[in-house]
Amino acid sequence: MTKGLVVQKYGGSSVANVERIQKVARRVVGYSKKGYDLVVVVSALGDTTDELIELADKINPDPCEREMDMLLSTGEQISASLLAMAIQKLGFQAISFTGAQVGIITDSSHTRARIIKINVDKIKEELKKGRMVIVAGFQGVTLNQDITTLGRGGSDLTAVALAKELQADSCEIYTDVEGVYTADPRIEPQAKKINQITYDEMLEMASLGAQVMQPRSIEVAKKFNVPLHVRSSFNTKSGTMIIKEVRKMEDVLISGVTLNKNEAKITLCGVLDKPGVAVKLFKDLAASGVSVDMIVQNVSHTRWTDISFTVAKADFAKASKITKMVAKKIGAGDVLFDEDIARVSIVGVGMKSHHGVAAKMFGALADNKINIEMISTSDISISCIIKKKDAEIAVKKLHADFGLDTVR
Amino acid sequence: MTKGLVVQKYGGSSVANVERIQKVARRVVGYSKKGYDLVVVVSALGDTTDELIELADKINPDPCEREMDMLLSTGEQISASLLAMAIQKLGFQAISFTGAQVGIITDSSHTRARIIKINVDKIKEELKKGRMVIVAGFQGVTLNQDITTLGRGGSDLTAVALAKELQADSCEIYTDVEGVYTADPRIEPQAKKINQITYDEMLEMASLGAQVMQPRSIEVAKKFNVPLHVRSSFNTKSGTMIIKEVRKMEDVLISGVTLNKNEAKITLCGVLDKPGVAVKLFKDLAASGVSVDMIVQNVSHTRWTDISFTVAKADFAKASKITKMVAKKIGAGDVLFDEDIARVSIVGVGMKSHHGVAAKMFGALADNKINIEMISTSDISISCIIKKKDAEIAVKKLHADFGLDTVR
Repeated sequence: MTKGLVVQKYGGSSVANVERIQKVARRVVGYSKKGYDLVVVVSALGDTTDELIELADKINPDPCEREMDMLLSTGEQISASLLAMAIQKLGFQAISFTGAQVGIITDSSHTRARIIKINVDKIKEELKKGRMVIVAGFQGVTLNQDITTLGRGGSDLTAVALAKELQADSCEIYTDVEGVYTADPRIEPQAKKINQITYDEMLEMASLGAQVMQPRSIEVAKKFNVPLHVRSSFNTKSGTMIIKEVRKMEDVLISGVTLNKNEAKITLCGVLDKPGVAVKLFKDLAASGVSVDMIVQNVSHTRWTDISFTVAKADFAKASKITKMVAKKIGAGDVLFDEDIARVSIVGVGMKSHHGVAAKMFGALADNKINIEMISTSDISISCIIKKKDAEIAVKKLHADFGLDTVR
Repeated sequence: MTKGLVVQKYGGSSVANVERIQKVARRVVGYSKKGYDLVVVVSALGDTTDELIELADKINPDPCEREMDMLLSTGEQISASLLAMAIQKLGFQAISFTGAQVGIITDSSHTRARIIKINVDKIKEELKKGRMVIVAGFQGVTLNQDITTLGRGGSDLTAVALAKELQADSCEIYTDVEGVYTADPRIEPQAKKINQITYDEMLEMASLGAQVMQPRSIEVAKKFNVPLHVRSSFNTKSGTMIIKEVRKMEDVLISGVTLNKNEAKITLCGVLDKPGVAVKLFKDLAASGVSVDMIVQNVSHTRWTDISFTVAKADFAKASKITKMVAKKIGAGDVLFDEDIARVSIVGVGMKSHHGVAAKMFGALADNKINIEMISTSDISISCIIKKKDAEIAVKKLHADFGLDTVR
């Protein structure tokens, strides 16, 4: 009888070199000795993925996505086989599989494929033989046998999906930080590790810039209620539990402050202020795969108005070109660009039941004479676009004003 | 209508870096422009395979062979996808496949798997779509979906097997030399490129030390009469044709001289000279996977005799241990070791119909006062074990005496 099934996922920094792979092997074997069945998902070694992307870029700056997936999927295959060898070296049984071998079937949207189904028979069979099963993260295969990848951070998704499908007792996400923090500790040294956080809060935080976990994997975890434990692979401290509902000793208004410097702002001036005009712009942007984030249309006192929106920096060039073309077509005025912005956000389910959170945020920024250029809100988050130079100060100020500096 | 189907194989040095991959892409596209269908087999980039082996060795010096295959197969997957991208960059259609995807089914002898069957439907389908098909060499998959590799030089075998199965019009093996030479040009600058050579001669030469092609792939080419063209990827000169029968302008006695410094000699002294005693030794060696090469039993004038044999250096430690154990068990005398040997061989179908070739060889070596320690012969080759220090001189002397220095 086993004590239960644990799915563990180790990120690239956790398997960056021989010593770290050996360390992960010892940890995995430790769990096995305690009587757990283990399925271990691994990312590519350290910067392997980036190095492969760079290599491809030299050969073809606009590579076919199917071929990119063929290329990038090798990174996780390498780390999976090496971890299996490291576990075998310790005298235990392990076997590694690619996403294809383990039956992770996806659609054919290469580089960002979605999992359609997982056939876990093979994994169960190997577990029954007393083996630890190592799975190459980040990848799957189409029904046509083409290799696919699940997008940046896709190994998280592999782990969550396997945990769901195998009805695992726990799903541990190992990374190079000790969990989810109230803010990025590199910016705010007072940042505290959060012991428990809800899926929704984590989802907002991940979407708003916290890079601990891939947003899609949290969505899947939420959908199937897979409890996640984000923790460090460098020590044995417990990290952050991501769960459905958090019972807190005291009422916590805000769980964390996030910062995202990877957006740019585009403003289309002199747009005729009548229904249907703005539609053209956002239709064209969507058609070319640009995902628009915040949109603000100025209150206009004339027939004309300005529309501002933000896009990811990666899409900036494409979005700029499209906006200029649309401006010409609809007879709008200038197009302004601003890459010098940052988005600072506060996240917390507490704000659902509390009034005045937004006012408190705006006040805090005003105290430091930080100008707010755009605002957007959701049920459990408020984001402000500010000048990039003010970003760090804003994070520290909000962290303090919402009481996150104090021990939780 | 296409002009025909060409299978090309590019070795590791031909795809060692971005520039060389681009060069291969231009060559492949050149063939396509001329109207040929193309199936291209690639090895791993440069020293990738050795680097992966080194990495594995640090983690587990005695790694599970299944996991080694998982690891090593990534090298060819990387080069296949990169070559496809490079071809696409030139504006042509290409698609890459792993051995598994392309249906190269093997047995489960990991690290040295044998091909059972190949299902070429997928390749034919892609060729019909007007695509160049790039196949990761060196690898296959078992019926149980485990990834296998075909042993060192296995990409040659992939190419030959695909050429056979696709009934290709030609099979070109691209490498960093211009073809098969009458001797290693680094030893004998007078060595000449051989324009045509028979499968049997090539097989002998490859087995005896010429490293141009993997022996197993030549065996398969011979069996199915697949004509091979070994040539350089750095220029467009024609290389060496490996075919069934060679029509020569004049009678050529010897096609080439080969040298192998990767063997060691073991001598078991004082063995009782009666039937069945030696059997024990070679049974034990075979049982532990050591492949014995030359065997010489001295003519004895007493009840006792000496047995000498050679093994690959890689097996030397294992073979030594076993021989010592057997010596003890059968009450033989000392075991002597000699790593300081070389095997020099002459190869040629011509010797079948000519007498005195062996005598001429021994005479040539005697002229230079080179002592012959062991001799072995086949239908089309004669090998002598000599001191390693005499190896280069022996090659040069034989090359000259058998008339290989003169233009063919």
